Amino acid sequence: MLTSLKRLLIGRPLKSTELGEQKLNKTKALAILSSDALSSVAYGPEQILIVLFTIGAAAFWYSIPIAAGVLILLTALILSYRQIIYAYPHGGGAYVVSRDNLGKNPGLIAGGSLLVDYILTVAVSVSAGADAITSAFPALHPYNLPISIVFVLFLTTLNLRGVTESASVLAYPVYLFVVALIVMIGVGVYNSVTGHVPENLHTPIGTPVAGISLFLLLKAFASGSSALTGVEAISNAIPNFKDPAPRNASRTLMAMGGLLAILFSGIVFLAYYYGITPNATETVVSQIADDTFGRTFMYFFIQGTTALILVLAANTGYSAFPLLAVNLAKDKFIPRMFTIRGDRLGYSNGIITLGVAAILLLIVFNGKTEHLIPLYAVGVFIPFTLSQTGMILKWMREKPQGWVPKLITNATGALISFIVTIMFFLTKFPQVWPVLVFLPLIVLLFHRIKTHYDLVGEQLRINPNQPPKLVEGNVIIVPVAGITKVVENSINFATSLTDQVIAVYVAFEREDEHAFEEKWKKWQPNVRLVTLHSSYRSIIMPLTKFIDTVQNKAEENNYRVTVLIPQFITKKNWHNILHNQSSLLIRAYLLFKRDVVVATVPFRFKK
Amino acid sequence: MLTSLKRLLIGRPLKSTELGEQKLNKTKALAILSSDALSSVAYGPEQILIVLFTIGAAAFWYSIPIAAGVLILLTALILSYRQIIYAYPHGGGAYVVSRDNLGKNPGLIAGGSLLVDYILTVAVSVSAGADAITSAFPALHPYNLPISIVFVLFLTTLNLRGVTESASVLAYPVYLFVVALIVMIGVGVYNSVTGHVPENLHTPIGTPVAGISLFLLLKAFASGSSALTGVEAISNAIPNFKDPAPRNASRTLMAMGGLLAILFSGIVFLAYYYGITPNATETVVSQIADDTFGRTFMYFFIQGTTALILVLAANTGYSAFPLLAVNLAKDKFIPRMFTIRGDRLGYSNGIITLGVAAILLLIVFNGKTEHLIPLYAVGVFIPFTLSQTGMILKWMREKPQGWVPKLITNATGALISFIVTIMFFLTKFPQVWPVLVFLPLIVLLFHRIKTHYDLVGEQLRINPNQPPKLVEGNVIIVPVAGITKVVENSINFATSLTDQVIAVYVAFEREDEHAFEEKWKKWQPNVRLVTLHSSYRSIIMPLTKFIDTVQNKAEENNYRVTVLIPQFITKKNWHNILHNQSSLLIRAYLLFKRDVVVATVPFRFKK
Repeated sequence: MLTSLKRLLIGRPLKSTELGEQKLNKTKALAILSSDALSSVAYGPEQILIVLFTIGAAAFWYSIPIAAGVLILLTALILSYRQIIYAYPHGGGAYVVSRDNLGKNPGLIAGGSLLVDYILTVAVSVSAGADAITSAFPALHPYNLPISIVFVLFLTTLNLRGVTESASVLAYPVYLFVVALIVMIGVGVYNSVTGHVPENLHTPIGTPVAGISLFLLLKAFASGSSALTGVEAISNAIPNFKDPAPRNASRTLMAMGGLLAILFSGIVFLAYYYGITPNATETVVSQIADDTFGRTFMYFFIQGTTALILVLAANTGYSAFPLLAVNLAKDKFIPRMFTIRGDRLGYSNGIITLGVAAILLLIVFNGKTEHLIPLYAVGVFIPFTLSQTGMILKWMREKPQGWVPKLITNATGALISFIVTIMFFLTKFPQVWPVLVFLPLIVLLFHRIKTHYDLVGEQLRINPNQPPKLVEGNVIIVPVAGITKVVENSINFATSLTDQVIAVYVAFEREDEHAFEEKWKKWQPNVRLVTLHSSYRSIIMPLTKFIDTVQNKAEENNYRVTVLIPQFITKKNWHNILHNQSSLLIRAYLLFKRDVVVATVPFRFKK
Repeated sequence: MLTSLKRLLIGRPLKSTELGEQKLNKTKALAILSSDALSSVAYGPEQILIVLFTIGAAAFWYSIPIAAGVLILLTALILSYRQIIYAYPHGGGAYVVSRDNLGKNPGLIAGGSLLVDYILTVAVSVSAGADAITSAFPALHPYNLPISIVFVLFLTTLNLRGVTESASVLAYPVYLFVVALIVMIGVGVYNSVTGHVPENLHTPIGTPVAGISLFLLLKAFASGSSALTGVEAISNAIPNFKDPAPRNASRTLMAMGGLLAILFSGIVFLAYYYGITPNATETVVSQIADDTFGRTFMYFFIQGTTALILVLAANTGYSAFPLLAVNLAKDKFIPRMFTIRGDRLGYSNGIITLGVAAILLLIVFNGKTEHLIPLYAVGVFIPFTLSQTGMILKWMREKPQGWVPKLITNATGALISFIVTIMFFLTKFPQVWPVLVFLPLIVLLFHRIKTHYDLVGEQLRINPNQPPKLVEGNVIIVPVAGITKVVENSINFATSLTDQVIAVYVAFEREDEHAFEEKWKKWQPNVRLVTLHSSYRSIIMPLTKFIDTVQNKAEENNYRVTVLIPQFITKKNWHNILHNQSSLLIRAYLLFKRDVVVATVPFRFKK
């Protein structure tokens, strides 16, 4: 039944050879991989206004110069990542670039922050998507959290189905969102220019504002740069592109950068021009759309596509997290299971881990977008800084033709990213401190996992100079509970394997002991029976003691000890609770505490 | 760590031979086995008043004749059960008496309702105990449910420690309660008789009341008879008494009947004389105590001992449920695990099942006593009726000396119990209908379990005319994942057992297949290797197919197939998640779906 539910949700299994069909063309890639970056405009501008609003609405004009700063940062990042794409055509995530150029630990810091960050991508995007919906339908406001969780479940299922099918579903909303926002910005700017919007809604640029400080402006800038989260996605996912992958990826990146710049500046401008004030129940984009179109079809269309693209932005996490996990797992820093492709060729373990972690985060933060964003942004800018710095070192080491402008580009990117990271810690410490706790812990865990795998590899390696211990004979111990077909079955099997078979009977009562020995002698005169007395009604303890004795003797002679445990296989599942499951307990105990082979002999009930 | 927690809570394990020490003398037995019945006076009288109050306070005088009816019922029940004690000296629970005299199904109906009823005993008693506490301390009123649950956990632990130790703890509160209530009744009656209580608090007996009906009076009578729940406990627990058990049990029963009659009539009289009105936040007993003593030490002493005896009344459930479960399990109607004595010689599985079920009931009914009582009472009177009816048949069949008065006694008991049962269904159908649904389901389940055990017994029995299938040889299949020490280990073990060893390698890639075959030929030229290709990255499917083929051939030659599966035993528990647990999956699949022996070969990591 579970199997058929799985089939219904994620489709039939795919053969390994069907992998090639899952590659992305540019149009689909732009949709899948840019939705995170593009959708950030739904909350980025708002973050700037929230900071400025602590001084007062008069400070809102500062959003214009701050936005200019963010656009410069965007340009630097896009150019830097373009170079990474060509330098790492097999996927240049921050982890790979930092590891190769800066060394293991910087690589792990980048990898660790990205892993956590992809989880935050999912959490932030779905909760912002829920915000877009509840801005349009205020009655739904109390249900932000459940709506977010449903979105995560939906995305997880979609991604377990596989990349291409998801892409077809996801491409439309992204383009619809871009078109809707461009129309809104166009109409808004037209209205503003033609004087249809009252001039007195905003304070003119340059108006002096009491209480403004550099600290506050930096904080607003850092907040605004959360609109740039997601620009690295394309450079991580180059192997997903159709050939020629690097060229296609680079073009997609440039297209995304252009779109992002247009949408971001348009929204910042309109928010300023309309004099919009951020509030807890309606997003800034919703207010702009309302002021531009009223609650008409266009308003709901904008809110709808915004919600959709945000939810699908979360999908970037689903593309990136499993790929990063594969890279980390191949280097043995996280469990190997993340390298295994599922039925539909997606890395199911990564997908499922991501979904579960995002839901937990949403629950912990009660689905509140504004609390998740600072953590998210700082987690993005740490790997940004590390990968750009890695590129500087690469250029200095390799010195290819024309390396100087390349170095300058990456150095600019590294410097700005570094400054933004520091700003986050300086201006938003109360919200971002967990990064300083969890990041070292994650890196430590990576190291411990790696150490374990290395030790395991060493222990599994065959050393030709050290011949294996030969097994010269076998002793088989058969615990028996009575004279039944099950026991007959086990004894027959044991005697077919070796002459050294010992049946063991654990008696709770003295009189029982003797009676059983008599019966046994008549029934199986050729099989040795040992009876053990248990004063405490435990079977495991006396049995283990006996096995220890046998094993000591066996080891002297290079004999191997096997314990035969019968297992009832019932016809119906519920019958299992009618049978004492002590065989399972005994098996687990012997296997993990004693070094004996445990052979489970099934006895199938036919009725 | 779990083990030491267990030791701390329930004490050291006891030897089976220490069982005799756990028998009860009369004083302790009265405390343990009567607390249920005696404590019922804390809610029984209140139930009468609640029904009468639907007409008005003027109707309260009817509680006096109703109480007289309840006392007659009590007398009949005590006399009937006294006869059961002597007729069934090994424990005459309603289940045994009904089964032996009326047949299997009436026995199962009695047994089923009692099982559920003991759970209700626990739930009703602890929630009424919580009521007594929150009557004294109204600030605690919102915490009725958590208080009740803590009590259940406490009792479960106590009973896992064993019967005698519980008894010592429990005897004092029961006697303190009896003394406290007798003092209260004495003082109250003295005050009433000497005119210290105003005459105008109650309407005189016989005052005509508008709206009174036979239906309402019967309903009040049925409600009041909930004070008799628990009188059967002694007759079920005769084996727990010191010798001569039946005589001791009978005396204890009479003592209990006497005390119950005194307390019940005293409380009903004082409630009537004081003109007490039932309300949701303070119990009737609390109001009587308050009116008699004010909020002095005596008031808190009465509330305290009431709470204690109610909580300990729940303990009757803990004495009775496991014993009944043993009887049902011996007859194979419930899982055999209920017959196993735990570390402290109590039937731990019964005790734990009872505790868990009671907590679930409390949660479902939100800890509200008044909603649980009707269900509880009807569940008590069904087995009352059945066991008394069983006794009638027994006397008619056996006709011992002086059987006629005995028959009349039991017939009276049966008739009254039957009438009370019918009254419950007629007057409280909306509350007691679940009995009509669950009781048939439980009886059906009993039958299905019995059928299963009978079929199992048949399949396990050795038939001397049908010689066992001999095992003439063995094929051992070793799934291998590479050339490692684990594989070397398994192959060595397998070849020590039989010549027919087949190593199986499942390849996901075609090229891999060939390379591995080459390597294998050099490494283990004497062991046959079969490589299987898996297009769907599943190991289980191709492996199972292969095993099926081998097994078909093996069966023709009376060979037995064993699959050897290596199991990593990691040094630390958390390391387990670093290893693909596919061996566990494969093992479970092969064992339950295919009829092969699965031998698990441990490979212990030393680092």
